[in-house]
Amino acid sequence: MTANVLEPVVVREVGLRDGLQILPRTMPTEHKLQWVRAAHDAGLRELEVGSFVPTRLMPQLADTAEIVARALELPGLMVSVLVPNLKGAERAIDAGAHAMLLPLSASHAHSVANLRRTPDEAVDEIARMRDLRDARGSRCVIEVGMSTAFGCTIQGRVEPDEVLRLVDKAIAAGAERIGLADTVGYADPLAVSRLFTQARGVAGERLSCAHFHDTRGLGLANVFAAWQTGVRRFDACLGGLGGCPHAPGASGNVATEDVAYLFASMGVTTGLSFDRLIALRERLGRWLDGETLHGTLWRAGLPKTLRSAA
Amino acid sequence: MTANVLEPVVVREVGLRDGLQILPRTMPTEHKLQWVRAAHDAGLRELEVGSFVPTRLMPQLADTAEIVARALELPGLMVSVLVPNLKGAERAIDAGAHAMLLPLSASHAHSVANLRRTPDEAVDEIARMRDLRDARGSRCVIEVGMSTAFGCTIQGRVEPDEVLRLVDKAIAAGAERIGLADTVGYADPLAVSRLFTQARGVAGERLSCAHFHDTRGLGLANVFAAWQTGVRRFDACLGGLGGCPHAPGASGNVATEDVAYLFASMGVTTGLSFDRLIALRERLGRWLDGETLHGTLWRAGLPKTLRSAA
Repeated sequence: MTANVLEPVVVREVGLRDGLQILPRTMPTEHKLQWVRAAHDAGLRELEVGSFVPTRLMPQLADTAEIVARALELPGLMVSVLVPNLKGAERAIDAGAHAMLLPLSASHAHSVANLRRTPDEAVDEIARMRDLRDARGSRCVIEVGMSTAFGCTIQGRVEPDEVLRLVDKAIAAGAERIGLADTVGYADPLAVSRLFTQARGVAGERLSCAHFHDTRGLGLANVFAAWQTGVRRFDACLGGLGGCPHAPGASGNVATEDVAYLFASMGVTTGLSFDRLIALRERLGRWLDGETLHGTLWRAGLPKTLRSAA
Repeated sequence: MTANVLEPVVVREVGLRDGLQILPRTMPTEHKLQWVRAAHDAGLRELEVGSFVPTRLMPQLADTAEIVARALELPGLMVSVLVPNLKGAERAIDAGAHAMLLPLSASHAHSVANLRRTPDEAVDEIARMRDLRDARGSRCVIEVGMSTAFGCTIQGRVEPDEVLRLVDKAIAAGAERIGLADTVGYADPLAVSRLFTQARGVAGERLSCAHFHDTRGLGLANVFAAWQTGVRRFDACLGGLGGCPHAPGASGNVATEDVAYLFASMGVTTGLSFDRLIALRERLGRWLDGETLHGTLWRAGLPKTLRSAA
């Protein structure tokens, strides 16, 4: 009924990076490649396939260059990688990734503890990455992912004004896309509504992604609230991978299949196939035997009202 | 920050009715009474404690009159019961319940299959219950719970216009409160937003409750969407009890502790104590050993930003 009047939404699968990076095991490259292909088959058109971090820090993602190379063969797929520093940016450019995701933490305490630099120093690094990209004649899109935008497990409260200041500064430093992230499950839909609205005032159309975890059950409510403010691109992990190290057993990222269902139920096009997503989730469960997958839709399946459409 | 400017919200615990009625076992009366007292201690001020249905149909709720009597002893507690027919209304009035919840299904097929009457016949019964209530000089509040308002497992689609027609008719028949319910997990936040807005146009302040199940993960998003339209009273079940017989293993009602967290995180007062709700959830798990409880907050606990306030 409303499918024709509502703008489509893009779901970016980030499980290959955000999901796998916290698991102690390393998924074999062949399984990752199957995941990439099956995700593409299921209709996903943006994938974050890995991270160019030093291998000794994250051996699970050591094969990122190979995954990028193979993912680039798939038609119409935008391939992004996480890049923590200038060296990583160089590797992303060499690999030919379409976009590099640069982390920026709005929490001073979290930034120093995890990225070993203050937020303002991280912004300076973004500017250097932009300069490198331009000097190399690369067209790799620079996307900034602002984590702890809604609070921090170390520092607690994060002031919205600080988030907005950093959004503004990141854009000045070269961010072409910016997303707000709640990786610790502190966001609530009212805060999402307010902060995304304010950030849009600062960033305009460059504000182009929302990244939520479902740690405390509010993941999909937060996706909906961000969508109401005009966000049309959302990160998600198949099977809700990406649990928080600070909350053992808790849910991880919002589940790709659940986000797809949320939008389909509202009549918003995502281009995703439920059957294929659910089938891929089952394969993922076998590949990661012993890990807890999350998400809700897989148990109940589609409602009668959507089954014919799917 | 915003706690002072936002209206408080009422959460009604319906686990003793909606949660227990689908379980094959019968919870001992003593455990139910402990549940009632602990819920009151946790700050809950509305409880649906049972149903006056024939004992042979629902032996799990055969002790409803006793539960009502004991719940009435607790200060400031509004005690409601589900009542399917005139005989049940008589028992609710005799028991002194503060409110009786009358089911009305917006789906013709579901109404005939489950209540053995068409929706319009059910509305006629509401009028007879109102007449009985008035003839008996009772002040028992008449609340209508409109189920399948967002779709039906038998019929599929339910037209919003039919829901609105029945809301209007139910009010004419004597409904003093009316709630819209999605017991099958078909609702999505956009549909919730639209239907509650339209229903408020018909029912005004009598539209006073939202009842959502989390069957497909959208429960809390739907609560948020209904709240945005002005709803300030929500049904919930501790531990997400109340799974759907049509979706084995799926989540049930939105979990009381998760709804409490949603509102607390937004700065909306509910008067509920997390520590006591979580402690009661643990007792419930022991009483219902072997049943799957749902909900999300209990795993991760409160975020640092709320811990001091709680």
